[in-house]
Amino acid sequence: MKACGLVVEYNPLHNGHLYHINRAKKKSNAHCIIAIMSGSFLQRGEPAIIDKFHRTKVALQSGVDIVLELPYVYAVQNSDLFAKGAIHSLHAIGVSDICFGSESGDIDEFISSYHIFSQKKTAFEQALQNFLQKGLSFPRASKKAFSQVGLTEQLNLTKPNNILGFSYVKTILENNINIQPLTIERIDADYHDENIVGTITSATSIRYELFKNNLLTSHIKNTMPAETKKALINYKRLTDVWHQWENYFPFLKYRVSTMSPNELANIHDVQEGLQYRIIETEKEATSFEHWMKLLKTKRYTWTRLQRIFTHILTNTTKEEIKSIHDQSIPYIRMLGFTKTGQKYLGQIKSDMGIPIITHFSREQPYMLSLEEKASKAYYSILKPKLKKQLLNQERERPITV
Amino acid sequence: MKACGLVVEYNPLHNGHLYHINRAKKKSNAHCIIAIMSGSFLQRGEPAIIDKFHRTKVALQSGVDIVLELPYVYAVQNSDLFAKGAIHSLHAIGVSDICFGSESGDIDEFISSYHIFSQKKTAFEQALQNFLQKGLSFPRASKKAFSQVGLTEQLNLTKPNNILGFSYVKTILENNINIQPLTIERIDADYHDENIVGTITSATSIRYELFKNNLLTSHIKNTMPAETKKALINYKRLTDVWHQWENYFPFLKYRVSTMSPNELANIHDVQEGLQYRIIETEKEATSFEHWMKLLKTKRYTWTRLQRIFTHILTNTTKEEIKSIHDQSIPYIRMLGFTKTGQKYLGQIKSDMGIPIITHFSREQPYMLSLEEKASKAYYSILKPKLKKQLLNQERERPITV
Repeated sequence: MKACGLVVEYNPLHNGHLYHINRAKKKSNAHCIIAIMSGSFLQRGEPAIIDKFHRTKVALQSGVDIVLELPYVYAVQNSDLFAKGAIHSLHAIGVSDICFGSESGDIDEFISSYHIFSQKKTAFEQALQNFLQKGLSFPRASKKAFSQVGLTEQLNLTKPNNILGFSYVKTILENNINIQPLTIERIDADYHDENIVGTITSATSIRYELFKNNLLTSHIKNTMPAETKKALINYKRLTDVWHQWENYFPFLKYRVSTMSPNELANIHDVQEGLQYRIIETEKEATSFEHWMKLLKTKRYTWTRLQRIFTHILTNTTKEEIKSIHDQSIPYIRMLGFTKTGQKYLGQIKSDMGIPIITHFSREQPYMLSLEEKASKAYYSILKPKLKKQLLNQERERPITV
Repeated sequence: MKACGLVVEYNPLHNGHLYHINRAKKKSNAHCIIAIMSGSFLQRGEPAIIDKFHRTKVALQSGVDIVLELPYVYAVQNSDLFAKGAIHSLHAIGVSDICFGSESGDIDEFISSYHIFSQKKTAFEQALQNFLQKGLSFPRASKKAFSQVGLTEQLNLTKPNNILGFSYVKTILENNINIQPLTIERIDADYHDENIVGTITSATSIRYELFKNNLLTSHIKNTMPAETKKALINYKRLTDVWHQWENYFPFLKYRVSTMSPNELANIHDVQEGLQYRIIETEKEATSFEHWMKLLKTKRYTWTRLQRIFTHILTNTTKEEIKSIHDQSIPYIRMLGFTKTGQKYLGQIKSDMGIPIITHFSREQPYMLSLEEKASKAYYSILKPKLKKQLLNQERERPITV
């Protein structure tokens, strides 16, 4: 059986994702679609709107055959580390292809860009350091460095999905990983073709609408499959929330209040004296968004600051992250599978170099205990009994549909 | 001017405390009463019902001339460390006497007990270790050891205020501190003499009633001076709370959720594998009281477990406490004074060996930065603007009446 990998967050899964799944299946000729999905917290440094289990179920109902969890230590990271975790995991489970959405839509642009990049790596890294020292944020400095070494003539690396896609391709080619990268062009927001996928809009704008209205408006309902609607409504009915940063603001404020600058400097990605500014701004901050605005400078993107707040919330230290990234990926976490997925797993299992883990346990690998910590922080905003109930999902069998 | 020291918590100040202040003044013939008071958290490991500034004001309105803050690192400790912090501070500010309430009421009983204790110290310590190893709690083991060496023939050391008083006397005599200890007999709860002090009941039963009814019932009103009533009502009107453990339960639960056993073992007073039981019981706990009940064993008193939870909440480590207790007390923190207090301070100031500090500042001693951390944790349950407003009191001039 041939499997194609997707790297996803499904926050929440919408019509654009359905289109991606269907097109990936056709393009790769795969029998089995394997999605590796961020768990409790996402690459932009945000809590997932509904938990990983509810999102897994929707994915399995929407054409995905196996859902893996992208470990926290890779999920809440810049695009290079995010890609590293995703690609190596998908490789371990034996996918022959990966298929990602991009603004470009042309895989040759990515591959030829990589070849230029690999030839000009030293020049690129010098340029990058140079722009970083000038106080630019990492994404902005990268863009300028890409442009300086001529990469952007092949591929528009100012576009977010091209950047992420380039990281996937770079990881594959740099490590000689036997995976065929494929890409499909992302459909613009507000694209409309009822015969295929209904209305398409971005997950960001869907979340914006959901939080603004605190319910599913008819406009939003047209942008997602029925399974997503059901999951969103059920989760809200059960927990009374769709997770967002403001829910965690009291915990974050309390936590920073009781941390010393040294302790805060030990948190992953807190650098260059940012600990002092976080402690100072805490005194003034009246909401999460207010705190972010107080902290925001040219050097730090909104996304990076949110990732830092995620690591503070989950108490993830530099040392913890380093001890993981010094090693290769120790396991694959499987959140759920379909019958097709099960068949694929039956075939691949004996050939895999690392174990498949499905749930938390007493003797779990260190990386999974960091996942557990993230998960506990994620559910901390719920009432104690509900927190316990939802955390118990992490100890149960994978989700099957 | 002669000054007499009192060691207090005023949680809240009631008629029994008024009686104590008046009797101490008469007995010592002092012109100035100096109370050293626990700040945000108390010896029993509980948040103070209203903050230190509101309690300071009431104390100054009730016959106390100077209010000092007993530092967090001494206040939330067993009776020996509590006494150490209190007596050395009062000595530094030049009191000639201290006067404490006790069940005994006879200072000679304390002094003769101390002499027996100092002769039989080795036997006592051996007996204490022996009982501790049998799994008894510290207070219970102490009582048995006291009894075994014959101390209890002089003084009933099963009574809480006798135990605390004995710690004061021991600190004074062991260190040859030039302070005259005095004691007055505590009046029983429900004692009633309207001519002197009105109805007397314990602070514990007052708090019980306050939290049960969430208002000042007429029964309670008779047990406290008008100033206390006003402070309680004003504080509640301002903040919407009287502080109690249940308010902090979500923070405590979140915090323990994201701590590793090693991190928890670094918290002050977490010993003998208690970190594992705290982490395990967190999963089940649906309220603070429930959590306490899940943790309670013969080895740990309720009070000690509450103190441990306080140190977890304030993130106070073994290392932090040790670095303080290795040194002598570096400063006196003054929370407020009357005109009489001011006059006394004018006379004593130049003779003092350590500085008087009144507020938090950027260059403050390390011990005061731990106080600041405790204070931030204490106010964390309030809305951001209110937290800021009340924390600002810590940076302002002392309270005067």
